[in-house]
This record gives sequence, C-alpha cells and structure tokens, in this order.
Amino acid sequence: MEIKHRIASALLAVLMAALVSGNAAAKDTLPSWNDGPAKKAILEFVAAVTNKNGKDYVAPADRIATFDNDGTLWVEYPMYTQVLFAFDRVKKLAAQHPEWKTQQPFKALLEGDMKTVGASGMKGLMEIVMATHSGMTAAEFENTVSDWLATHKQPKFKRLYTESVYQPQLELLAYLRANGFKTFIVSGGGIAFMRAISQKTYGIPPQQVVGSSIVTKFQIKDGKPVLVRMPKIDFVNDKAGKPVGIYQHIGRRPILAFGNSDSDMQMIEYAMAGKGRRLGLFVHHTDGTREYAYDRKSHVGTLDKALDQADARGWIIVDMKKDWKDVFPAK
Amino acid sequence: MEIKHRIASALLAVLMAALVSGNAAAKDTLPSWNDGPAKKAILEFVAAVTNKNGKDYVAPADRIATFDNDGTLWVEYPMYTQVLFAFDRVKKLAAQHPEWKTQQPFKALLEGDMKTVGASGMKGLMEIVMATHSGMTAAEFENTVSDWLATHKQPKFKRLYTESVYQPQLELLAYLRANGFKTFIVSGGGIAFMRAISQKTYGIPPQQVVGSSIVTKFQIKDGKPVLVRMPKIDFVNDKAGKPVGIYQHIGRRPILAFGNSDSDMQMIEYAMAGKGRRLGLFVHHTDGTREYAYDRKSHVGTLDKALDQADARGWIIVDMKKDWKDVFPAK
Repeated sequence: MEIKHRIASALLAVLMAALVSGNAAAKDTLPSWNDGPAKKAILEFVAAVTNKNGKDYVAPADRIATFDNDGTLWVEYPMYTQVLFAFDRVKKLAAQHPEWKTQQPFKALLEGDMKTVGASGMKGLMEIVMATHSGMTAAEFENTVSDWLATHKQPKFKRLYTESVYQPQLELLAYLRANGFKTFIVSGGGIAFMRAISQKTYGIPPQQVVGSSIVTKFQIKDGKPVLVRMPKIDFVNDKAGKPVGIYQHIGRRPILAFGNSDSDMQMIEYAMAGKGRRLGLFVHHTDGTREYAYDRKSHVGTLDKALDQADARGWIIVDMKKDWKDVFPAK
Repeated sequence: MEIKHRIASALLAVLMAALVSGNAAAKDTLPSWNDGPAKKAILEFVAAVTNKNGKDYVAPADRIATFDNDGTLWVEYPMYTQVLFAFDRVKKLAAQHPEWKTQQPFKALLEGDMKTVGASGMKGLMEIVMATHSGMTAAEFENTVSDWLATHKQPKFKRLYTESVYQPQLELLAYLRANGFKTFIVSGGGIAFMRAISQKTYGIPPQQVVGSSIVTKFQIKDGKPVLVRMPKIDFVNDKAGKPVGIYQHIGRRPILAFGNSDSDMQMIEYAMAGKGRRLGLFVHHTDGTREYAYDRKSHVGTLDKALDQADARGWIIVDMKKDWKDVFPAK
C-alpha cells in the first residue's frame, strides 16, 4: 500500500474509533468481567480520564497502565513459570555439568529431592537461576525461552503457559489500549524471559516490559557484536524496586496499576499517590475450581497486608470467583 | 516559534506531502537536507524497509531507530549541556555548602578556576555531578532541570539549549515516525535530565529515552511515596554500554542508529550487525561558521576511529556543512 493510503486508512481508523468511543464501547468491552464493583470501577475510571470535558481528564501521553505478570496476567501457582523453566534447564544442561552430581542445590534438583532444593532458600534458587540464565548471548537466551514456552504445559490446565493467561485481563489490556493507554508489564520476573513472549501473548512490545535483570556485556564474538548475559544480578524489580523500575524504564507515574500480591503494594501506592484520578487493583485468587485459591499464607503471590489495607486505601480487590465470568481464553 | 509548534509543523509537512503523493513525499520530506549521498541513503533506506513487497521490508514493530543526543540532536560544543547545568547548580547551591569553599573541585569551580576543575578529571566531574544530581526526589530534579533549560542560553547561538537542536534531525525524526518507526534517544547523558525535555524538544516520550542513570530508592517521606536520587552511579550508557542500554530498555535491535562520535560506534556496530537492511550514520561537525568544526582531537564528541572505519563498514558520514541546508530551526 502506498504511503498516502496507509496514512489515510490510519486517519480513518482514528476517526472511526472516535465516532464509536463512549457508551457503546463501554458496554461490550469486558465480556469476561461480571457486573460488580470491580468492573464498575474500571469502566468509570476509564470514562473519567478520557472525558475531555471532565475534571479527571488525562492526556493520552500520561495514560500509563502497569500490570504485574505472575498471578496478575498469567498463572503463578503452584510455582512461578520462570522457576519451572530454570529447574527444567538444569535437567537439560546436566550432561554438560558433571559437577552438579555432587553440588547442591543442583544434586537435589537432579534427584527430584525438592525438599532439599526448597531448603536451599533464595541463595540456592539464585544459583539455579544464574546457571540457567547466564553464559549465553541475549539472542540464544530468547530462543531457549521461546522454545521452552512453546512446548511446556501448565500441569493442571493442560495448556501452554502462554495460554494460561487470564481472559478478563487480555480484554482489559485491549480496552485500555483502545482508550489511548500505554500498557506496561512491571514484574519481578526476568525482563528478557517475559519479553520473549509479551507481544504475542499480551500485545505488549518488549520496550514496554519492565522486570528484573542480570548484568549484560557487549562483546565481539567470532567477529560479531553480541550481548552476553553474565551471572550477576543487575536489578530486582520487586516490592520497593517496582516504582524504581517504573522510574528508570517509563519515566512517568502510572495512573492505573494492577497487581495480585503484597509485592505489588509499592507499585500501586506509587501510582495512587500521583495527582488526579488513579486506580489501583489486586487480583484475589479465590477460585480453587477454575484456577487456584490462595492468599495470606501462600508461598507464591502472598496477598496479606494488601487485603487488610485495601478498603482504607481505596484499592480494588478483584475477586476471581465473583468478578470473572471466564478465567482463561476459549481453546 | 515554540519548539512543539516546530515539531508539529515538521510532522504536518511530512503528512501533507504524503497525502499529496507518495513520490512527492520523498522529495519534500527533509527540506533542510541538501541532496547528496547522506539524504539519498536515508530516503532509499526508508523506502526499502517500508515497501511491503520488497525484499528489505521490516514490520513496523521492528522499525526501531536510535539517536545519540549530544552532538547528534543538539549542540554539545564547547561543553555538554548537562555538565554546564551541573557547574551552574554548584554555584546556586554553594550557600548551603560552606564546605565547598575549601573542598576541591568545588572550590576551583566557585572561583572560576576551570583549569583546576579540568585537572580533577572524571573523578572530580563525578563529584560535581553527584552533588548536583542526587539528594532530591525525582520530581524535584525534573523541575530543576526544566527550569534551568527554560532560562539558560547557549552562548554562541543565543538560543535556549532546547532550541540549539538540529533542524535536519527534527525533520528526520518526524519523517521516521511518519513511516512507522519508533524513535529513541540512546545517550551517555543522564536519562532523567533528557526526559525533562525530550517530548517537547524532539517529540520523544520519556519511555523512549535511554541514558545513564544513578541509583534511585523508593521511600515514604512525610507519608508520601517518593523516589529519591542517590549519590551512586547505576549505569553508564556510553560506548559498549549503549548496546546494553538498548537491550535493557528496548529489547530490540535498532535498524537505524545515528551518532556523532566514537562513543557511538558500538551502538551503530550492534545495529548494523542484525539481519536485513540497516543504516548507521554519524554527524561530522564540519561547520565552524554555522555551528562548530571538531572531530579527531576534540575534548567532546571525539570522532576519529569512526571516520577511519566508515567506508569499510558502510557507515554514512553526514557532513554538516555540505549535507545540511539549515542547521537550526528558524526563530
């Protein structure tokens, strides 16, 4: 298509969107959300910040929405997908690492002794992550992640991990973007791990993914410039790290932030503390049948303090069982 | 004319040209670029990567263009704007720092003894930068930078620093965006310093600015969550740091990279090493009358190795004197 046609059709699309925006769009936009306080809060918020004549209007450039990933956009229970990836990589790489036969926590992991792996704590987990996430080029790592996620299924739902995503959230992301928002992932997960699938899974391009990172070095390898992933933590984008990650990557304060655990409190607190209308939300995993039920005492995605403080601070608790008509996309 | 109006009219010119005729767009899009090999290379490159039926077609999502800032988008000679800002802030803050009267390099700077300041080297400069760039909230720093840039002029051109920007580059940025590119700044300068003015000056939003950063901490101050800038370097986005900054912030390899000094070589090398058609360019400051003439032996923006290697590596050297019809926007 010639450039004039491309521009003309882009203009037409914008005009059409402007013509249909407003009430009609708001009615059918979130079909997997049941009517209730959470859906109402979302629709009212978006209506308010996009109403040019209203007191809560926010210019499109400042319509920044940030979403946690594990437990907010995709399943995190009973264990974070990226940790399962790391465990599996240890098994795949074991032949090249005979020393792991005697070295903990690798020995225990290879023997299936998960109790000992668990007892190795954060230190042990970091050793496993470093052994599986560094020592290769950025491109090699991305391919490994893509291949793994294209072939491994979540055991309870028998779906690929990239299909174990929440349909209501896919609708919400699309709805926000249709209303001029920029949608970002802000997760404790690895930035490069999520970027391998963010566009295809969520329609979120790599540059809108903020996550934890490891030190990376530019090197010339066989005459070609490459980025090599080093066995050293660069930044942990979790808890109080989330507002910092947002500052370093986005440089603007979100007006909407969505999480599911106490680790998201600082992100939501930071978003809500800005001027003007704000929306902060948490997914509460209340559905042991369709997904999982866990909160205060869970080993992943602990939701405890945020539940206690939600009312007083105006945070919306999204009750998965009540608020979501569907949990996963239709197969 | 205000800068944002200038950007709007540059964009309008591109859109109008595109609407009138596809071919005409190529003719009138870069009016401040003289016909010559550089302009030809740019137009041919953009035509090739946007031609859906051509072998060099690149999907819009992958049309990433990265630009250095100092000396590539705005004037850097005789000294980087951010360093001048830091020097000026030391003078403004001196009353609150009586210890600076005896402490180098602050003492020399306050006495106007620039030779001693220079002799303090990178260590001294870093002390000055840390003293003026940390110890405040992110919002306070942004306001200070915005205020300073709104009131200080480049001495030779008697223009605000934000008006000492290159008109041909504003046109190029607008032209690339009109052709589906995402434009990014990738600079050794401070990420927060540039973000204060990037949207208004270049039409580049904060989240598309990659730069050097200092450690920032999330804190509750007077009951409000704030981000506090700490006196510690987080990341130096220069030389081999540029491809790393691109990886961490953008997560995609640029297909076009534009710099002006040897510090941009790794960024351009990295961009050019990707598959498919690529374009790497350097501004060569050859115009001592309209701007400045400096290259191999300059204390800022040294362009030496890149000049030697350009031909062999297919890098385009943009000769400011020959290739640019205008240097600055009309006042």
